[in-house]
Amino acid sequence: MTKKLFMFEKPLGMRDTLPFLYEIKKRVRQAMVREIETWGYELIETPTLEYYETVGAASAIDDHQLFKLLDQQGHTLVLRPDMTAPIARLAASRLYQDGNPLRLAYNANVFRAQQREGGRPAEFEQIGVECIGDGTVAADAEVISVMIAALKQTGLRNFTVAIGHIGYVNALFLEILGNEERASVLRRFLYEKNYVGYREHVKSLPLSSIDQKRLLQLLHLRGNDKTMEDARELVHSEEGKRAVDELCELASALQLYGVDGAVKIDMSLVSHMSYYTGILFEVYAEHVGFPIGNGGRYDELLEKFSRKAPATGFGVRVDRLIEALGESEAEAAIECIVFSQERFAEALELARTKRREGKRVVLQHILGIRDIDAYSKKYQPITYLLGSGGKEE
Amino acid sequence: MTKKLFMFEKPLGMRDTLPFLYEIKKRVRQAMVREIETWGYELIETPTLEYYETVGAASAIDDHQLFKLLDQQGHTLVLRPDMTAPIARLAASRLYQDGNPLRLAYNANVFRAQQREGGRPAEFEQIGVECIGDGTVAADAEVISVMIAALKQTGLRNFTVAIGHIGYVNALFLEILGNEERASVLRRFLYEKNYVGYREHVKSLPLSSIDQKRLLQLLHLRGNDKTMEDARELVHSEEGKRAVDELCELASALQLYGVDGAVKIDMSLVSHMSYYTGILFEVYAEHVGFPIGNGGRYDELLEKFSRKAPATGFGVRVDRLIEALGESEAEAAIECIVFSQERFAEALELARTKRREGKRVVLQHILGIRDIDAYSKKYQPITYLLGSGGKEE
Repeated sequence: MTKKLFMFEKPLGMRDTLPFLYEIKKRVRQAMVREIETWGYELIETPTLEYYETVGAASAIDDHQLFKLLDQQGHTLVLRPDMTAPIARLAASRLYQDGNPLRLAYNANVFRAQQREGGRPAEFEQIGVECIGDGTVAADAEVISVMIAALKQTGLRNFTVAIGHIGYVNALFLEILGNEERASVLRRFLYEKNYVGYREHVKSLPLSSIDQKRLLQLLHLRGNDKTMEDARELVHSEEGKRAVDELCELASALQLYGVDGAVKIDMSLVSHMSYYTGILFEVYAEHVGFPIGNGGRYDELLEKFSRKAPATGFGVRVDRLIEALGESEAEAAIECIVFSQERFAEALELARTKRREGKRVVLQHILGIRDIDAYSKKYQPITYLLGSGGKEE
Repeated sequence: MTKKLFMFEKPLGMRDTLPFLYEIKKRVRQAMVREIETWGYELIETPTLEYYETVGAASAIDDHQLFKLLDQQGHTLVLRPDMTAPIARLAASRLYQDGNPLRLAYNANVFRAQQREGGRPAEFEQIGVECIGDGTVAADAEVISVMIAALKQTGLRNFTVAIGHIGYVNALFLEILGNEERASVLRRFLYEKNYVGYREHVKSLPLSSIDQKRLLQLLHLRGNDKTMEDARELVHSEEGKRAVDELCELASALQLYGVDGAVKIDMSLVSHMSYYTGILFEVYAEHVGFPIGNGGRYDELLEKFSRKAPATGFGVRVDRLIEALGESEAEAAIECIVFSQERFAEALELARTKRREGKRVVLQHILGIRDIDAYSKKYQPITYLLGSGGKEE
């Protein structure tokens, strides 16, 4: 048996967006979308529900975080946990026909089931792009640059894009640890950002002191002029060196884009999204504990939908972005005209004139109001057209 | 056992929205929302998932059309099948505190499970308003008028708003049939618009020929100057006459709003939404078989959320509205600059300049393109900045 629900309750992690927050969300969404559109990305929508077997499995979100339900044919459905997998399905099936680059964008809610109250939201809005079919580093640079430009359009300052390369980490781990199983344990410490645990685990491994040092040094390959050079020295394999080359090429492109001030190389960056295959990144803003956005290259995801294609993209979480911006905006200004029946025509004409001027005007019959003192506090200015008297503000 | 899914498939009734349709949806959405905002309505969002016991039960959508799932506490959740019930929950719990009118608006997807392929969409977008706490006919007139104004802003012409009063139909049926059970059978014929079935059923009832005639006459109480007069004569009870009075008051208000040309009284109008209690309406557009929007007064819904309040609102279905508009819009114009590595900086500068002018510009590395002939057909104009040569369009 479950407890009786109170009429007002909402499911765990589900939230209402009231007018004040809605206005901020709308402004932020429009600012980002407008910038993304000028870069030639085209917006699309995909369904809220997808098949678990196909898109659900490709999504790289932990199974216990999926909202699942059964359809009448006995298939399991999921509420989309991200937008990258649905867009990969759509691109593979209908849009990516001639093998040429596709630039798609979205703003959409995604869903992650939560285990307890007071935790994270179970539904949140993401805005992002996917550049599909282009394997060049220029495409990685563009995706990072359009993200930075879009974030700046919202008014965000003081944010950093940490950039790494999953191919580098994998190459280094394979060289030293010899197999993928051991590598995955270390990768987990990195994506949880548990550097203490990483160090301890490295020290417990049956490795030469040189190899232990190499693994520990990975944590220091961050954000200074010598990072690339050190990174190239640390790794021996072709794959590792190629990853460094790609990052160097990326860094010069980002310089041309003029966004290099906002980025920081972090060779230890690893994502919990398992589909990334190359350059990857996370965005951090002051005063927000979690990344407000992330992205990267996923050259093997479209293969899961029967069509091979390189791809890269980013997604920004609107709730965290708004947290980073702070709620500095004023509520929308709405005027009000209160009228009595006799002066309906006059009130309507006044409302019409003001609306034509672009003002937001509530037109309210006096008999619909219960508490006029409380009501008059909600709107500014408020005009009374009552009885046969005059006009009062 | 279920059949194996093809990777590209989507759940029954679920659809992708490609860029061309997205642009139309966006334009229509913005046009409606902008108009609704000038009338002082404030936009809000509610969660996609709600409790079945509370909002699901209040929604007036058939149980077999609900998408249901279980949460980890054992409660049944539903994907919201409409927006009126969630907004009633939200208003009752947080916004409707002082008993004064609230004007809320939304654009949101709602969900209705479908039984077979090729049928109706299982997820579709609605745009609407709810005016809560105002029991005056002026509020009904406003809701109908803002709907008409918003539809006109999308470019829609040739549409009709059929207006009726559920209180009238209920009063007439109760007078003649004596109980609610018999009334509900007849109401069902009306909301299915099965007038042949209605007539046959009336003739099969054990009633005097006068009463049979009265029931049949209801079908003729539509859209001419004498309709109100005839309607008042047909009904005997206080409730019935009061409903006619309200419709007369509404008609004069709509005349002042200048929208009376778009409306038509239909005393036989009945909705499948069981929560309506008074004036109600449906919008029909040329060439579209289903109503593109509907609405009405629901003075008893908020009581289900422990707070009594009169209310009225409308909802328009964006998919049907777009069908009514016809797809006359051209695709968004996007330019393209194709560059080779050597001329990256130059290409970037050109893209930047064009974007600043408000143009949408794709910047594409030549190595990312597989089939240049196909690619060049997608964008117009396309500029090539390749090798050390000149510029070509």
